[in-house]
Parts: sequence; structure tokens; C-alpha cells
Amino acid sequence: MTAPWTVSFTSDNIAGASPEVVAALAACNSGTARPYGNDDATARARARLADAFERPVELLLVPTGTAANALALAALVPPWGGVVCHREAHIDTDECGAPEFYTHGAKLMPQDGPDAKLDAATVRTALAGVADVHVVRPACVSITQITETGAVYTPAEVAEIGAACAEAGVPLHMDGARFANAVAALGCAPADITWRAGVRALSFGTIKNGTINADAVLLFDPAPAWEAALRHKRAGLLASKMRFVAAQMEAYLEGDLWLANARHANAMAARLEAGLARVPGVGIVGPAAANILFCKLPQPLIAGLLAEGFAFYHDRWAPGVVRLVCSFATTAAEVDAFVAAAERLARG
Amino acid sequence: MTAPWTVSFTSDNIAGASPEVVAALAACNSGTARPYGNDDATARARARLADAFERPVELLLVPTGTAANALALAALVPPWGGVVCHREAHIDTDECGAPEFYTHGAKLMPQDGPDAKLDAATVRTALAGVADVHVVRPACVSITQITETGAVYTPAEVAEIGAACAEAGVPLHMDGARFANAVAALGCAPADITWRAGVRALSFGTIKNGTINADAVLLFDPAPAWEAALRHKRAGLLASKMRFVAAQMEAYLEGDLWLANARHANAMAARLEAGLARVPGVGIVGPAAANILFCKLPQPLIAGLLAEGFAFYHDRWAPGVVRLVCSFATTAAEVDAFVAAAERLARG
Amino acid sequence: MTAPWTVSFTSDNIAGASPEVVAALAACNSGTARPYGNDDATARARARLADAFERPVELLLVPTGTAANALALAALVPPWGGVVCHREAHIDTDECGAPEFYTHGAKLMPQDGPDAKLDAATVRTALAGVADVHVVRPACVSITQITETGAVYTPAEVAEIGAACAEAGVPLHMDGARFANAVAALGCAPADITWRAGVRALSFGTIKNGTINADAVLLFDPAPAWEAALRHKRAGLLASKMRFVAAQMEAYLEGDLWLANARHANAMAARLEAGLARVPGVGIVGPAAANILFCKLPQPLIAGLLAEGFAFYHDRWAPGVVRLVCSFATTAAEVDAFVAAAERLARG
Amino acid sequence: MTAPWTVSFTSDNIAGASPEVVAALAACNSGTARPYGNDDATARARARLADAFERPVELLLVPTGTAANALALAALVPPWGGVVCHREAHIDTDECGAPEFYTHGAKLMPQDGPDAKLDAATVRTALAGVADVHVVRPACVSITQITETGAVYTPAEVAEIGAACAEAGVPLHMDGARFANAVAALGCAPADITWRAGVRALSFGTIKNGTINADAVLLFDPAPAWEAALRHKRAGLLASKMRFVAAQMEAYLEGDLWLANARHANAMAARLEAGLARVPGVGIVGPAAANILFCKLPQPLIAGLLAEGFAFYHDRWAPGVVRLVCSFATTAAEVDAFVAAAERLARG
Repeated sequence: MTAPWTVSFTSDNIAGASPEVVAALAACNSGTARPYGNDDATARARARLADAFERPVELLLVPTGTAANALALAALVPPWGGVVCHREAHIDTDECGAPEFYTHGAKLMPQDGPDAKLDAATVRTALAGVADVHVVRPACVSITQITETGAVYTPAEVAEIGAACAEAGVPLHMDGARFANAVAALGCAPADITWRAGVRALSFGTIKNGTINADAVLLFDPAPAWEAALRHKRAGLLASKMRFVAAQMEAYLEGDLWLANARHANAMAARLEAGLARVPGVGIVGPAAANILFCKLPQPLIAGLLAEGFAFYHDRWAPGVVRLVCSFATTAAEVDAFVAAAERLARG
Repeated sequence: MTAPWTVSFTSDNIAGASPEVVAALAACNSGTARPYGNDDATARARARLADAFERPVELLLVPTGTAANALALAALVPPWGGVVCHREAHIDTDECGAPEFYTHGAKLMPQDGPDAKLDAATVRTALAGVADVHVVRPACVSITQITETGAVYTPAEVAEIGAACAEAGVPLHMDGARFANAVAALGCAPADITWRAGVRALSFGTIKNGTINADAVLLFDPAPAWEAALRHKRAGLLASKMRFVAAQMEAYLEGDLWLANARHANAMAARLEAGLARVPGVGIVGPAAANILFCKLPQPLIAGLLAEGFAFYHDRWAPGVVRLVCSFATTAAEVDAFVAAAERLARG
Repeated sequence: MTAPWTVSFTSDNIAGASPEVVAALAACNSGTARPYGNDDATARARARLADAFERPVELLLVPTGTAANALALAALVPPWGGVVCHREAHIDTDECGAPEFYTHGAKLMPQDGPDAKLDAATVRTALAGVADVHVVRPACVSITQITETGAVYTPAEVAEIGAACAEAGVPLHMDGARFANAVAALGCAPADITWRAGVRALSFGTIKNGTINADAVLLFDPAPAWEAALRHKRAGLLASKMRFVAAQMEAYLEGDLWLANARHANAMAARLEAGLARVPGVGIVGPAAANILFCKLPQPLIAGLLAEGFAFYHDRWAPGVVRLVCSFATTAAEVDAFVAAAERLARG
Repeated sequence: MTAPWTVSFTSDNIAGASPEVVAALAACNSGTARPYGNDDATARARARLADAFERPVELLLVPTGTAANALALAALVPPWGGVVCHREAHIDTDECGAPEFYTHGAKLMPQDGPDAKLDAATVRTALAGVADVHVVRPACVSITQITETGAVYTPAEVAEIGAACAEAGVPLHMDGARFANAVAALGCAPADITWRAGVRALSFGTIKNGTINADAVLLFDPAPAWEAALRHKRAGLLASKMRFVAAQMEAYLEGDLWLANARHANAMAARLEAGLARVPGVGIVGPAAANILFCKLPQPLIAGLLAEGFAFYHDRWAPGVVRLVCSFATTAAEVDAFVAAAERLARG
């Protein structure tokens, strides 16, 4: 069915793609090209990523964030290893066991922590202990940037976790499904929250922020690259007409489109927060650190907004709690319409 | 590197996509859509497939033919089962163990046979015997249409294999990486070489014949569909912005673009065959039953053609044997240029 | 190294085997026998189990409790399923990921609860919710009898959990590493805490209670039996000279040796509890419901006992907490010596 | 059912165990011992193996030859690797996919060759070629000593294969299900056909030659030892009461019992060969190089022998072909009775 809504904040995956991305994809449909990533567009995408991250990276283009996470973890964790993550981590809660499939049975080790964030102390505790043949030992730590509840890890926070990992000799993975929103929010260099802070493998999400199907695993450590390439092929992820995927990545990075898109999404979430903060009965429970806002609404207000055709998830986290996600395609008019309706309903 | 060639017959995966497919993809970039295949375009693609196949099908869109094959086999074969296939089957020779990965360790059981084809007698022999806890038993038969050497299974041949499978109670899978070329060559209904002939799961290849990344698993048996959907998600194949993939499938089927494309590719291969048959020293070793031609060339002729910038695979199957693959994008001018060069070099 | 201790309560796995078991093993070393479980001893073991459990059972003999658990779970849970268990369950904490290996990546779903026990309400909550392609759904519940902290599920408690499982349509597995100790403690029929209470598969532990390497999976549901037999072979667990394993099982059940052994072990734990309860400074934190006792000791007392050569685990669960496990081979003299030493040290 | 035969040559797995082995097992049933292989008997078994093999070995005791093979291969081969073996190799034909299970989907790559033997040229050809992301590359070679048809690899033959493996940088595995029979037949040192000839991991079979369930993986390369130990635990193979298994290994090696047993079995096969060679109509098709004899019998003779209660496999390899296997427990009287019956039936 067609989406019946007029304005939706359910997720940033309901948006289409940036016009620039679609145009680039269409433009590369000319002549023949070497298949399986041996084409010019893939080489150019790799070069642009090296620019953006200030160093060479191993690039594995994949069609989904789940594939990126599962493939990255498989490159880092043996079948008998554990993955320390937050209890709300997408890899543990929303991927139907993809990490277990790709790693051949590694164990996710969920931890608690506010804002869906791990901290260095939690990581250190989780990594403590000695090897014992009876016990699954943590072999990797995975953090999500921005987190599942919209919080942002600062470069210092990532670096502290990276240091805890380094002490224990385990690699650090970042699920960057909304990596651009974090970089935009922090105003930092991509390297500052990745390899310079100890991240060894990044799931570089682009789909939620403007591409169609051009997510990627970036390996900052070349050691597991060949094995990762074999896993990539073996998982059926190595596209023959890779140029069409690589062209999206190229356009995404070109002229910092990715950061412009993310800044816009973040700004829309901030606008929502500012607007809703003035609505009687609305509480902000998770500020719009990037492009996600959590607030608490009276049930009649939730029901009223839904009845008017606004779409969003609610009551999943706690009664009355609403999650509002903005994307590069969210308009100020949509935000303002939502705020105006909330205000009208709340005061009415 | 940019492809250095002017004219290439290496594979049909070096072509771009049909303009209609790219246009449809671009056209669906409007507004929001439900993610993960719950969108209108996916529903329409499913409906068109039901039309083309004269019955409802379970549809799983995937980004590569390898993913289609591995996912389909996993839906049909337990970890301790075997997959009877031809010794040249792509699933055994070119997928880096993807079927073993997706099935959790099933064993491929390659058989001999001319033209990379299985026949019913071979299948019957392979499926004979009784269950024994020590032995991996065949649990599925897989055939490739058109085969890896360009031959086409007739509806009767598929039906005979289907009958042998039914007798033994094992499902039949078809790797249809070039399914359209077979339908075009046979002039039959798609159903005639699939479910009406006993095929339970089809890897419906479209990428080689005009889409970007819209291959699919089609299940004609709904029983394993929910498990297959979980495997699809778990493998990281469930695209959030599925509409962009489904739109390609829709355009591919619209107005029988797929068959027009395939007929063109087949015609180009026939033109190559007719042309080369007149060249002194050239032998046709595998006629262009669809869009692939195998011929035998003197080594100086091979060297000469390569030196002029023509691209093709040679000497992989036997000394002097050349494979020439045409696609929907191959032009008559390209074919004629190749033939003319061969003729000139052979006579010179 | 030789165990340096004189008296040890570390675990019931440090004991040897019952003399009757060793004698039976030695006695079956006569003449030839059909291999792979097609021998008379295996048939007799199966018959005795049917007697003990008041119905036919599918029997898979395995060399370890870990193999029993992992094989049983694999028979019940698909790769994308979850196993609801207690946070202290051996399957999650002490098997190096064997369940994940055998199930091809199922996810353990640990729950809280006193005495390492699940209850029906917890199970019901864990099983609630609807199928969703993004989420790993519970596909099995596993409870340990007696629990990892020595508590015993009553027949009614098991039956309530069994009912909750039946409502949700998921099978119930019991890790019966110390199953005999539970039956002895409860004075019930084996059926009362297994199939009559809804248990579909039992890891029937015998090694801790008197055999050498004759643990078993018992399936009360014949449906998955053939697949389980293939998994058993495929895991390298199908012994060619199975008669030597089956003879142990036969002797274990003969004349209710298993229950006599378990009653003795339980009595020794009760004797320990009674003795230690009188020692100043000692608190009983987990009564000897069967053959395991948890108590709290002052650190100097722990140190003193260790210094005298007594062996036991301590300070793993909480500071000062000591676990004492008795086996069929524990003697009253050993118990009395330990209590006397504790009393002397505590008063000294 | 009880074996109905009086004299059987079906396999060496129908025998019981050496009395010395059973006695040693019974003798170790005294007092407590550290579990999981941290006991004295295991340490002594390791020391004896080091003596026998003239160097330290990593020892993993397992209950079956299938477990030994699958575990050894998993230690050597990644999931995307191939195992070059003979077409009749037990790992490919009789283990229900155990290697695929333990390796997470590696591909067996069966080769042809007389006497179920690989030779260096075949190995070299199989290992040729370059790494390519689309193709499963051989990652290991596995040979069986003695082979499935009873032939014996000489030290020189193993060394030539070992050299071919070393050139290609892939490890060599030996399935030594009947390793003792080979050593006895060759009169060589165990090292001569293992590590000195390039073997990196040995499945050291003992069960067919006198133990109950004490097979082992021996690693001559310590590098994968810790990972192998984790795989061993994770597969449910790490016995808690390991002393009872280790005691068997100790007794097996003590005073070269293993070689005495093997020499006897080999002698019985030679005696069968000598006797049958004189029987009219009997052809020797596979001489008794060790303890297995293949001969060709007229069908009436096969039927007559079976009718008299002799047991053996026949007509599996080719019409009229009979396999006769002798064990340490086969008696000269049994051999003579068989030969006499054959002679009588053939002449009558």
C-alpha cells in the first residue's frame, strides 16, 4: 500500500535518495565497465573515502546496514568470540541474527548504560578476565554512532573506549548507520571518531542519509581485508555492476553532500525540539543531539496527531514516549505543520 | 582502471542497464515509502511476476545472482543435505562457497554431462540409494538455464528432470541467471520451464539482461517462504529502500522489455556465429543457442583480435576455445566489427 | 598434575565412576558387536530408559553434557531462533558457544530469577510478541534441573513452564546434568518432571553421577529424531563401539543405581549443611536442596580451609560465598572432616 | 539385535578393546582427578605420544574418528577454503558432512587416483592457480593412511605430497584411522610418515586397533592449538572425566601394544590373502598391504559364505568384489575357517 501519511517521522529510511545521487547513478549508465568493483567509479569512491578519512581504507560496498554490520563483525570476531555491545544495539535487537550468521555463532554480550551508550568503564569490566576454554570471551566491542536513542559519542568518549579495547587487545567496531549525523553534530573530522580514536572497522551508513543502497564496510586495518573480500563474495554481496553503487558513494561524498544532508536532518530535529518544547504537556526526554528526538506526549495528543495523518513510533520505549526521526528530505514545512498541529491539539 | 577495450564479449555483466530501468528507478524517487518491501513498487513487481508466471510467486529481491542461488538453496536443503548439480555449475565453481555458507554446510555433488546439462538419467542415478546416517544424501537438484556453456534446456528436458526429482521427493532449483535468454530462445511461457516442469525455486536473474541490482528468488512453493524471509533478512539482503529495486523489476517486466532485451542479445550471438562460421580456421564448438557462443580459433587469430582491442575470454576451457557473450547492449556494429577483424586477420 | 587435595567439593565431575558401571563396561568387552549403536547393549539401554520414563524415548548417547545440550537445542531451534534460559544457565555461561555452534547461530536469551530458576511468568513474558522479520524470536525454552545454584524445580513448576511453552507453541528443553539428584530429592517419577510436564527434550546427565562418558539426549517427541541422528553423526558423536557407552547407561539404570547414587550425594550435602549450620560465622545462602550447598564464610575461614588442603570454589558469586558439591563418591568421613576443620578454625 | 555371525570381516570396528586398555581404564577409577584433561593420565598420555612421535604434540582426545577428522580440518581450513582429498576419502563419503559442519562450510575437492591414493602430481595440479574472490581455493590436503582400499603410503610418498603442499603453502592432514597398521606395515617411525614428511595434523585413530573411544587429533604445529582447544570444547568433545580416555591412550602406547595389535591384524590379512589365493575362482584385487584385503569372488561363493554365517561387505565397489578387514582381535582360527569354507565351497 502507498504510505497513507502526509508527514512521517517514523524513520530516516522512508525518504528517497538525494537527487544528486540518483543523477550520478543514471549518469554512469554509459558503455561497458569492468564488473565486481574493478571499475573506475569504485576506484574513485575509494579515493574520495581516503580523502574524507585522511588515510587509505579498505572498502566493501554492501546493500544494507545489516550486511555492513554482520560482515564487519565477521572480519573481527571468531565463531567462539563475543561482541560487547549496548543492550539496545541494532546488531542485537533488529538484525534477525545476522551477526550470528556471518560470524558462525559468535555471542552478543549486551551491556547497560544511559542513552544507549557504552562507556569505557563498562567496556573495561566486560573485557576483564582471562581466557578459559569453557567461556566465550569478548573478541570485539561494537558501538553505534549515533546511538539507537539518538545520542552522540564525542571523539573523547570514542577514544576512551578505543583505549580500553587496545588495552585488552580487542578491536573496536562502529555501527555508523547515522555516521554523517554524528559528524555533522560534532563538527569533527571523520577520523576523529574512527581510526584516530581506535575504531578498526566502520559500518559506514549512507542509505538513511541520501543514497539508495550504497552502505559500506570500511576497514582501517588492512590485515583482514582479503578474508573480508572473500566473505563479501561468499555472502552474495559482491555486485557485478558495482559502478552503479560506487557512483552513489561518489556523489554522496562529492562537495560534502553527505554533511549537508546530515546538517539539514539535524537542523530539522532541532527545529522539532524547539517547537515541541513550547507545547503544553510535552516533555523532551532525549534531546535532538543529531537527527532523532525523543519526547513524552500525553496519550490524547499522540492519538490526535496520528488521527491527523502524522506518522511516528510511540509507546515502544515507555508509555507516552514518542520517537521522531528527521532525514535529509524532511522539510521545515513538515516540521512546522507537526508542531502547529501538536500545539493546536494540546491547547484545544 | 577504465576498460581499455572498444568492443567486449567477455560477459553480459559488463553492460549497463536498460534506459527504461534507470528511468523507472529515477522516477520512483518521489516522496516517502514504507521500507523493507512494504511499498507499492514491490507490490506491483510481485503482481507483474504473477502475470508473467501465471501464478502467485513468493518474491525475495536480492542484489546478486550468487545471493539468489545461495538463498534459494538454503530454503530447500538442510545442512546435512546434498545439491546435485553439473560439474560446471556456477554454484559450485564461481560463488566462493556461498551455497555452503547459506546452507550451513550442504555438499555440492557435481555430475558430468555434455553442454553443462544434467539429464534425467543422471539425476535419477544421483538420487538413488537409501538414507544412511553416515552419508550425505542429495536433498535438491539444481540446473542452470541457460547453462554455463550456453546450452538451453527445453521444457521437456526440464520436465523430465522435474519428474525424476518428484519421484525421489527432492525439490528442483533453477539457476536462471540468463533465464530471459532461455525463454526468448525457446519461445515458451516462463511457466513451461519452471513450475509446470517441476521447478520449485527459481533464481530469476535480471541483472545480466538489463537491471542494475534486481535479481530475485522466486518460490513457487509457499511452504518455505517465511523461513526464506528470515534468511533473507539475516543475510543482510532486505533493503530498506526496496522501492528502488522493485521499480527496476517492474520496468524490466513492463511491456516485455526483458524478452525484447533477451531476443536482441540472442540475435547478436547468432549474428556472431553466422559471421565467424565463414572465417577460415574458425570452428563453432558451441552454437549460439541463446546469447553465448563458443568457438575455436587459431592462436594467432586470438592474439590478433586481442591486440586490436577486442575483449573476450579464451583458453580457459580448452586450447584455442573462445567464449563470446552478447548482451542486450551489444550492437550489430560491434558484432560486425569483430567478424570483419577476424576475417581480415585470418585471411591476412 | 595430580590433584593435591585430600578432600574436594569443587564439583561432582572430579569423582570416578561407579564400580558397577566400570564392571559393566569391562564385561561387555567380549566378542564382536554391530557398530554405531546397532548392538544389543544399546537396545537394552533404550529399553531401560523406556521403563524409567514410562514411555519410549529416542536415545542419542553423547560423551559430554555440553554435547547433549547443544545437540538437543539444535534439534529444537532454527538458526534464527532464540533460546530463553536463565542468566546463569550452563548453556550460556560455560559451553564456549556450543549451542551457537550446533544451532548455526541461534541466540541465547538470558533471563533473571532467584535460585537460577525461570518461572512461568518470566517465560510467558519472554515468549510474548509477534513474529517480525527483523527480530530473533524465542523458539525454545531451556531450564536446568537441578539449577546451577542447586535449586530444584518441582513437578508443578516444570508443568507451569511447560504450559507457558505450549501456549506459545515452543518446545521446552531440560538440561538435566544433575537430573538424578532432582528425582532423588523430589521422590517423583522421572516422567513427572519431563514429558508429563511438557519437556520435549532432555539432556540426561549421568557422568556427574557415576558413569564415565554416557550422557544422552532423550527426545520425547519422535518428530525430530531422524534429523537429530544426522546431527549426532555429523558432529562426530556417533561412537563405533557404542556398546561400551550403552553398557554404562544400562548399569546406571540397573537396580536404580542412579537413584541410589543421587540419594547418597544429596544426603552428603544435607550432612554438610547440618554440620556447617552450627559453625559460628557460617551462613547458609543456598540450602542443599539436592547435592549442592552454597554458604557464606568469613575470609579467614576460607583461607584456613584451603590451607588445610580442602578444595572448593569461592568468591565467584559474591564475596565470601562458597559452593560445595557432593557426589555419589563423597564420603561421610570427608564431610565430617570438613565440618570439623571449619568448626576448629572458626572457634580457634 | 545380536550379531548373528560367527566370524566377521566387515570392519575392524566390530572388535572390542584390548584387555590391557580395559584394565587401564578400570585401574584409573580411583579417587578424584582434575577434570577436563588437567589430570595426570592425560599428562602421561601426552608424554607417551611425544616419545612415540619424537617431539611434543598438541593432543586433543576425541570419541570418534569423524570428530578427529572434522576438528583437525577445522583447525587448518577457513570456511571459504577447500580440502583436496581422494574421491574415496572417508571425510567425503562417510561422515555425513562433519567436515563441512566443523569448518563452517569448506568444500571437499575429491580427486582420482589408484588405490584411493593421491600422488604429488595430482596434489600439485589441484593446488595450482591463483587466488580469486569468486573461487574456493584449496586450503588443505588430506590423505588417509592406510587408504580406504587398504593401500599404504610410503614415507617417500607422503614426503612428496608434503613437499607439494609446502610449495603451495597449504597444510597437510592425515586421516590415520588405521595409522598403526601403516606403521606396522612399513616398519618405519611414526614421525617418518607424519611431521618429518610434512604432515601438520594427524587424526590418530586408535579405536579400530584396540581402544574404546580414545581417538585423537595430534597437532605438530602449535600455532592453531588454542583455537583448536576452543573448537574442541565448543563441539562438546572435552570430556570432564578425561582420565578414563587418557588411560586408554596410555595403555595403547605402553610397551608398543598399538604396534603389536596392528602387526597381528596385518598378519591375519596376509594369512587370508595367502589362503584365498589358492582357492579356485578367487582373484586378489587389492593385496593385504596392511589389514584390509580386497578380492573378487564368484557370486555363488559369496552367497555360500554368507549362508554359512560369515560376514563381510561385497559388491559395493564392483560386482563380486569383497572387502575383508582383520583386526587385532581376529584369530588365525577364524581366518582358517573362512579359507577352508571358501575352498570347500569353491571346489564343491
